[in-house]
Amino acid sequence: MSSNKFGKIFNFTTWGESHGEAIGCVVDGIPSKIPLDESDLQKWIDKRKPGQSRFTTQRKESDKVKILSGTFKGLTTGAPVSLIIKNEDQKPKDYDEIKNTFRPGHADYTYEMKYGIRDYRGGGRSSARETAMRVAAGGIARKILDNLSNNQIKIIGAVVQIGDISIDYSKWDNNQIHKNNLFSPDKSVISHWENKIDNARKEGSSIGAIIEIRASGLSPGLGEPVYEKLDSDLAKALMSINAVKGVEIGEGFKSVLLSGENSADEMRIKENKVVFLSNTSGGVLGGISSGQDIIIRFCVKPTSSILKSRKTINKNLEEVEISTKGRHDPCVGIRAVPVGEAMVACTLADHWLRMRALKL
Amino acid sequence: MSSNKFGKIFNFTTWGESHGEAIGCVVDGIPSKIPLDESDLQKWIDKRKPGQSRFTTQRKESDKVKILSGTFKGLTTGAPVSLIIKNEDQKPKDYDEIKNTFRPGHADYTYEMKYGIRDYRGGGRSSARETAMRVAAGGIARKILDNLSNNQIKIIGAVVQIGDISIDYSKWDNNQIHKNNLFSPDKSVISHWENKIDNARKEGSSIGAIIEIRASGLSPGLGEPVYEKLDSDLAKALMSINAVKGVEIGEGFKSVLLSGENSADEMRIKENKVVFLSNTSGGVLGGISSGQDIIIRFCVKPTSSILKSRKTINKNLEEVEISTKGRHDPCVGIRAVPVGEAMVACTLADHWLRMRALKL
Amino acid sequence: MSSNKFGKIFNFTTWGESHGEAIGCVVDGIPSKIPLDESDLQKWIDKRKPGQSRFTTQRKESDKVKILSGTFKGLTTGAPVSLIIKNEDQKPKDYDEIKNTFRPGHADYTYEMKYGIRDYRGGGRSSARETAMRVAAGGIARKILDNLSNNQIKIIGAVVQIGDISIDYSKWDNNQIHKNNLFSPDKSVISHWENKIDNARKEGSSIGAIIEIRASGLSPGLGEPVYEKLDSDLAKALMSINAVKGVEIGEGFKSVLLSGENSADEMRIKENKVVFLSNTSGGVLGGISSGQDIIIRFCVKPTSSILKSRKTINKNLEEVEISTKGRHDPCVGIRAVPVGEAMVACTLADHWLRMRALKL
Amino acid sequence: MSSNKFGKIFNFTTWGESHGEAIGCVVDGIPSKIPLDESDLQKWIDKRKPGQSRFTTQRKESDKVKILSGTFKGLTTGAPVSLIIKNEDQKPKDYDEIKNTFRPGHADYTYEMKYGIRDYRGGGRSSARETAMRVAAGGIARKILDNLSNNQIKIIGAVVQIGDISIDYSKWDNNQIHKNNLFSPDKSVISHWENKIDNARKEGSSIGAIIEIRASGLSPGLGEPVYEKLDSDLAKALMSINAVKGVEIGEGFKSVLLSGENSADEMRIKENKVVFLSNTSGGVLGGISSGQDIIIRFCVKPTSSILKSRKTINKNLEEVEISTKGRHDPCVGIRAVPVGEAMVACTLADHWLRMRALKL
Repeated sequence: MSSNKFGKIFNFTTWGESHGEAIGCVVDGIPSKIPLDESDLQKWIDKRKPGQSRFTTQRKESDKVKILSGTFKGLTTGAPVSLIIKNEDQKPKDYDEIKNTFRPGHADYTYEMKYGIRDYRGGGRSSARETAMRVAAGGIARKILDNLSNNQIKIIGAVVQIGDISIDYSKWDNNQIHKNNLFSPDKSVISHWENKIDNARKEGSSIGAIIEIRASGLSPGLGEPVYEKLDSDLAKALMSINAVKGVEIGEGFKSVLLSGENSADEMRIKENKVVFLSNTSGGVLGGISSGQDIIIRFCVKPTSSILKSRKTINKNLEEVEISTKGRHDPCVGIRAVPVGEAMVACTLADHWLRMRALKL
Repeated sequence: MSSNKFGKIFNFTTWGESHGEAIGCVVDGIPSKIPLDESDLQKWIDKRKPGQSRFTTQRKESDKVKILSGTFKGLTTGAPVSLIIKNEDQKPKDYDEIKNTFRPGHADYTYEMKYGIRDYRGGGRSSARETAMRVAAGGIARKILDNLSNNQIKIIGAVVQIGDISIDYSKWDNNQIHKNNLFSPDKSVISHWENKIDNARKEGSSIGAIIEIRASGLSPGLGEPVYEKLDSDLAKALMSINAVKGVEIGEGFKSVLLSGENSADEMRIKENKVVFLSNTSGGVLGGISSGQDIIIRFCVKPTSSILKSRKTINKNLEEVEISTKGRHDPCVGIRAVPVGEAMVACTLADHWLRMRALKL
Repeated sequence: MSSNKFGKIFNFTTWGESHGEAIGCVVDGIPSKIPLDESDLQKWIDKRKPGQSRFTTQRKESDKVKILSGTFKGLTTGAPVSLIIKNEDQKPKDYDEIKNTFRPGHADYTYEMKYGIRDYRGGGRSSARETAMRVAAGGIARKILDNLSNNQIKIIGAVVQIGDISIDYSKWDNNQIHKNNLFSPDKSVISHWENKIDNARKEGSSIGAIIEIRASGLSPGLGEPVYEKLDSDLAKALMSINAVKGVEIGEGFKSVLLSGENSADEMRIKENKVVFLSNTSGGVLGGISSGQDIIIRFCVKPTSSILKSRKTINKNLEEVEISTKGRHDPCVGIRAVPVGEAMVACTLADHWLRMRALKL
Repeated sequence: MSSNKFGKIFNFTTWGESHGEAIGCVVDGIPSKIPLDESDLQKWIDKRKPGQSRFTTQRKESDKVKILSGTFKGLTTGAPVSLIIKNEDQKPKDYDEIKNTFRPGHADYTYEMKYGIRDYRGGGRSSARETAMRVAAGGIARKILDNLSNNQIKIIGAVVQIGDISIDYSKWDNNQIHKNNLFSPDKSVISHWENKIDNARKEGSSIGAIIEIRASGLSPGLGEPVYEKLDSDLAKALMSINAVKGVEIGEGFKSVLLSGENSADEMRIKENKVVFLSNTSGGVLGGISSGQDIIIRFCVKPTSSILKSRKTINKNLEEVEISTKGRHDPCVGIRAVPVGEAMVACTLADHWLRMRALKL
């Protein structure tokens, strides 16, 4: 029931506010004797870290993660692993405006309605800063998957659309993704995206994005019908990321445009192995992984913190206008890539361990 | 952890196979003293019942639900409510073909891989027949919501797209929805859809659909950040329905095409009440209901059981062809409407009860 | 959260009232391909069945269990197994007295306070009749344990004390237990217990008992510190049985009388195997099974339904007297033996499956 | 499923090892706007703190708790509260002996068998040092209960037996308990206990204790039949404390010696209020609180770390002898008093919040 806990067997609980002293998480359900140190986590956190290009927030945080428990001599012990990142960039700021005013598109109003109190400093608990700990937990999930799959599982995310410009899927190149600040797998689209984002920022506006996560090297059998299906759990995991408004797997919403024969992947045998002739399913049939690549997409709405003045209300129910100054990502979708990868990694690690429980 | 259980406080566990003796569910976490009898559930089940038009399967089932426990003198007692529906249409059939052969697009292959055994009669546990019990549980969820909200909450679903034909949203009419067999809120589109479906059936093919569920009359405050957000739980709930490949809330994937200012709903005061000037969020901000209508969509891929011959393999890893005879919905999306409504109702009832626990 | 569900991976949910149409349970988290039919469950249910001797209630129920789902051709499929037992002995009775009056020692008053409504027929949901389904679920748990342990695990329960007469532990004989109606492992004590019980019944009173459950053949490693320890979960499982007021493991409360050196079991090697020189721990150290026999005891208070007149109140808060007529066990502890065995079996099966998830 | 998490709605997850850098916990499911600062927790932690008398370990820890998240301007916000205590007394020690040798009565052997690796420094995760965080979480639970009950609920624990010397219950005086280092409610027994403990220590041995926890001021209605009963959850909570071997409620095991009429508490009306004429039930009927005081006891076995030499084995399966030097409580039962109180407080807070969810 804990609403800050993710996962069943492999699971983690995050805590901390944007401008509190620290953020952290407790990761539990980790098999023992898995090699683990901070560098295994730091490399993923660094990909999400703010301030790396002009396309992300200029907030400066070194985001150094520390392991406080659960390992001994470089190995996991089966005990919970506690992780912490100190918040560094907590300038004494003037929060007077957002203190009493609800920023449109943000969680200010709903947190106030739900809790009757709100840590308004940088969005408090509702800030995307929380996702740094998801990435850290994802680093542990990847270590577990490496161990279970003998390093066969690869999880890679990329931006596939910004605003109305999609990548050309025929140009997808995994090697390209981490060579550019926008996590694009298609080199040809990068300059167009850069223009889009620059324009949005200059106008005091922002822009949305679609992210695709692919996981390869999976065995068939992950997922537990009928209410813990692999795709349901992935949908929940990705929808829980800040600003996400939709999730689709395989052909997703486009499958509505397909005929029955084209939306059911045919099967053949090649070199004594089962192969599918297409992957409209996105690697999941009946809620269970088929062994094909998992292909899942989610969309991130344009950043709600924008310079343009917007109509809103305040706590006294007065009508006011607000414009959000300060350091914000013009396209939050970009930094959602490592977060999406992490949520997929955590979901897969959890389901793999669950599968082991029941498979005789 | 139970993979056949849905919900936390309000929750239900379903059981049963397509061609077993019966299907059923146990609904728990029901407040006591709520009036409840079978007619409260039957009315929703009847909407999902097969054999009602040429657009759905011709399987004949009266689908009469029976309450076996948990009520006394017409009121709930706080004890679990056990529901059962007898399976009637269990003809001794020749299952030889699907017994050993994996139907493309179905769960046959993945169930075989996961469990090493498969009740192949009508798809067994993976059949959409299971969803009848979701609709029954949804009937109880609606009674709870009626009680909690003083009958303010309305949950209504409709088909908004079949194949490539979408409704005209400006013609949305709630009263129209239950006057046609296709659950269309737009009268003008019905004949076009009928043609689409008829053509698909004649070709031995099938067709997909998009369903939209709307919930009105909610208070702000439902949903539990950061991993039990209302929209995450709705996404999981809807993605768990058979053949669903995507879920989106509010503007969903279209929000990527919006500017920052147009994707953050502005707020004003009208007659001393908070109003939003748009609803691109779909009624959820930061994972918590805002009081606006919940608007959520999911897509259902074309039925995988089609007459057209398709390439596949069998248990002996031989390459074969299969075509599925028998009674199948040419567009399973239609009967997914009451199921989607039920899953939304159950999610809302669960979250409302959870909200009550913590709200002082 | 479901309060009628027991277990995490292996789990079951019971439903039904004492005088409703039926009682049942849904058992989930069962590995596939385990041979299972009704006779595997019936043999345990028969041990708990009422009406077998003058020492238990004279209610006549054939208690025939039926499997409604989850098996195919005699094997489990991984889908939930639904079990049902029809209630037969539902005489139209005059419940006027207990309808409004709270029987001392029973749950009448607390159910009324909690739920504001009460199925008073035979105690409704609070009746020990519910435990028949625990025994059924325990039958499935035993099948799982047989499979996992290669038939090494044996779980056997016995009555070790009735009133103030304890068995002589030196005379413990497993073969004796099922040769007498009182589940005594010590032949010499039986006639004394019979006298005790007969006297209690004649006086219109009742008598309590202590039950001991032993599980042998376990491997080390079951149990999950620090809040899902094996002994904590066993304590919860046994304390949830009707009328139980205490649980202790190993030397239990007597360990307070031991010295430090006598309450820590020494270890040696015999024939290359680890052996303990005593078993004061009852087979659990630090919440994890040690490989020694699990030895756990629970006490059952005297039956609260007695003929003797007792002071109580009714719903109108009037002071009244009540004496409970009808068919009641003078010593409910006796029929608690198969229930205790079942709860231990279910706890061990659940923990064994959980151990498999995380053990690399 | 998280094995280091306690509770359902109100819940906490602990982490940390005896000789790691810190221990901590994340407390979630806290209603918002409850006043909370570190002093609310420190006062309870100080009661458990080591080194306060010659009857507890001489380890010196200031045990200062720090709140890292979840409060704002002195009030809870509904976000998780992260707590941390630095470990100070981590002397570089020679752990060579216990590194490879299994101390009898400890969790060394079972942790090694389960995890294949063991942080042997001071017992690592299995050390009772973890219970400091339970006491901290209990401090938050008490704040919630104060708020919910308008300061009516009082939870108080005491030692009632050490070795074979029990208190005289007729001399119970709540005011006495915190005036002596042994948490005795009966002044007359203190010097006898002191002698007992001193003797045990001088002999290089140790001694066990029984603790009783009483909770008053409760309403009827807490607890959720049939598997989340209040007494089952209390039993699990207390059994999860290190070295506990038994739990009993009300008359507990002594109820076996009572007649049916004496073990069912009669009811009367006094000044228009329901009163019970006795409390053999310990405040719980049918798993639900009756409004009477909760009275529950648990026993703590003698400390396993003793100077006397004991037979054991090492990791190489060689037979060896071990005697545990260093700073150990001769009677760990004493410091279990605040831990038991905390576990009862947490269980009651959780159940009270759960009750609110379903009570219309």
